[in-house]
Amino acid sequence: MMAALLAIGIDPQRSILFHQDHNPDHTELAWLFNCITPVGKLRRMTTWKARLATSRNANESEVDESLLNAGLLTYPVLQAADILLYRATHVPVGEDQKQHLELSRDIADTFNHTFKRKPKLFPLPGYVETPSRRILSLRDPTSKMSKSSPDRDSRILLTDTDDQIRSKLRRAVTDSTVGITYDPVERPGVANLLTVLAACMQTDVLEVASQFENKGHGDLKAEVTDAVIELIREPRAEFERLRNDTTYLAEVAREGARKARAISEETIKTVRNSVGLS
Amino acid sequence: MMAALLAIGIDPQRSILFHQDHNPDHTELAWLFNCITPVGKLRRMTTWKARLATSRNANESEVDESLLNAGLLTYPVLQAADILLYRATHVPVGEDQKQHLELSRDIADTFNHTFKRKPKLFPLPGYVETPSRRILSLRDPTSKMSKSSPDRDSRILLTDTDDQIRSKLRRAVTDSTVGITYDPVERPGVANLLTVLAACMQTDVLEVASQFENKGHGDLKAEVTDAVIELIREPRAEFERLRNDTTYLAEVAREGARKARAISEETIKTVRNSVGLS
Repeated sequence: MMAALLAIGIDPQRSILFHQDHNPDHTELAWLFNCITPVGKLRRMTTWKARLATSRNANESEVDESLLNAGLLTYPVLQAADILLYRATHVPVGEDQKQHLELSRDIADTFNHTFKRKPKLFPLPGYVETPSRRILSLRDPTSKMSKSSPDRDSRILLTDTDDQIRSKLRRAVTDSTVGITYDPVERPGVANLLTVLAACMQTDVLEVASQFENKGHGDLKAEVTDAVIELIREPRAEFERLRNDTTYLAEVAREGARKARAISEETIKTVRNSVGLS
Repeated sequence: MMAALLAIGIDPQRSILFHQDHNPDHTELAWLFNCITPVGKLRRMTTWKARLATSRNANESEVDESLLNAGLLTYPVLQAADILLYRATHVPVGEDQKQHLELSRDIADTFNHTFKRKPKLFPLPGYVETPSRRILSLRDPTSKMSKSSPDRDSRILLTDTDDQIRSKLRRAVTDSTVGITYDPVERPGVANLLTVLAACMQTDVLEVASQFENKGHGDLKAEVTDAVIELIREPRAEFERLRNDTTYLAEVAREGARKARAISEETIKTVRNSVGLS
């Protein structure tokens, strides 16, 4: 993962990159946040409700939330700690994470109000949207492209060869309507390919769609394939180079953890002090 | 609290005494245990159900578990981490904590089974019962004596003066039955005073009861008062002396934390390794 993040362009001189479990402040702050977060709020998280629904389908009469782990229920609290530990003001999130960011804002606000400290300890983090629309599954364009989907053909990986990319895009689900139009509701598969192409070209999806006015599915797939192959070429090579340089990766992780802790230590000290610990 | 524990005889040369928040391994292990503990098990804890009942009484139509905090729901998991972090084999608990210790055994067992490590990482902790029966409230002998009860006369504190002890025991709830017998169900107030006396004298409660065969409530209260005053005299003086010696208290805490971390560090390293972290 570290190699992948570096390969796609995260610069460790500008960004602090570290393994979360190298900084125990995360779980400590999560515990303290658990103590000011109502169970009801966590049960209303759509991620929790979705997992609940999945479990129910598996064995309808037996399974209820009782079998899901407390770690899943309280995971959004850990995420809030991940953000607030660094007093982050802007968080880049996908659409499906907006509710979690809302919870982080709630927790920050509750903490600020409960332990009246001047100036307020936590800024309320805002979100930064990605320039691209959400990338959806190549096999089921109504759900997001996901690394945890069982269907490997539904996603393109940084490590895919050019041939694998070609094959996955050739098999991408579209529709039987003639011509290319951008219509995410009625034509999700075609719209998704246009989104991918627009993201590769760093341009607007409607502009991309207009270029395909008189073309067909084959033309679109061919152009998306070329664009994705081109996009992935360099980062993939860089990834392959980096993943073998374990000394460098460990050094980036160590240095990142050191910088992260220098910041989080200040926060956790103030938090402990605010709640009446040491 | 540190001064109180030292004053009643905990020897820092034999026992490791420290502030839990000086060791972040507790919250880290608690987080990992959250990830293997079903929400249903936590909702079946009597402490959780009791708090739920209390909240409901306060505002019957509105309050449900949604308003209670996640920290309360997952507190038994933190307790399990407190125990298992030191691979404890014996835990001194009151009756009302037996269910929590059962959960700790469950979590230890689940961890051992899930992450098959030879030899097993966690021993299943057993409990050590106190020699005395449970001490109940002086004002309501059907509930336990508790430092968090709103009625200050319901409990005797280490810092109470002799006069305060006399006054509280004089006002202790008993009954209007003539004579003294040990009958916890029908005569909880009298039974509780006998329990206190037996605890002070380190002898069996039935033997104590037999000594009051031909005596009355006044005799029992007088003797309990003398015994409690005598029991508390030395620790109270020691407590007053120690609470002013903040240098010594800080030193005990620092040294305790150092010893505690030396043990817990080994456990948490093995746990991280077992679950696939660093």
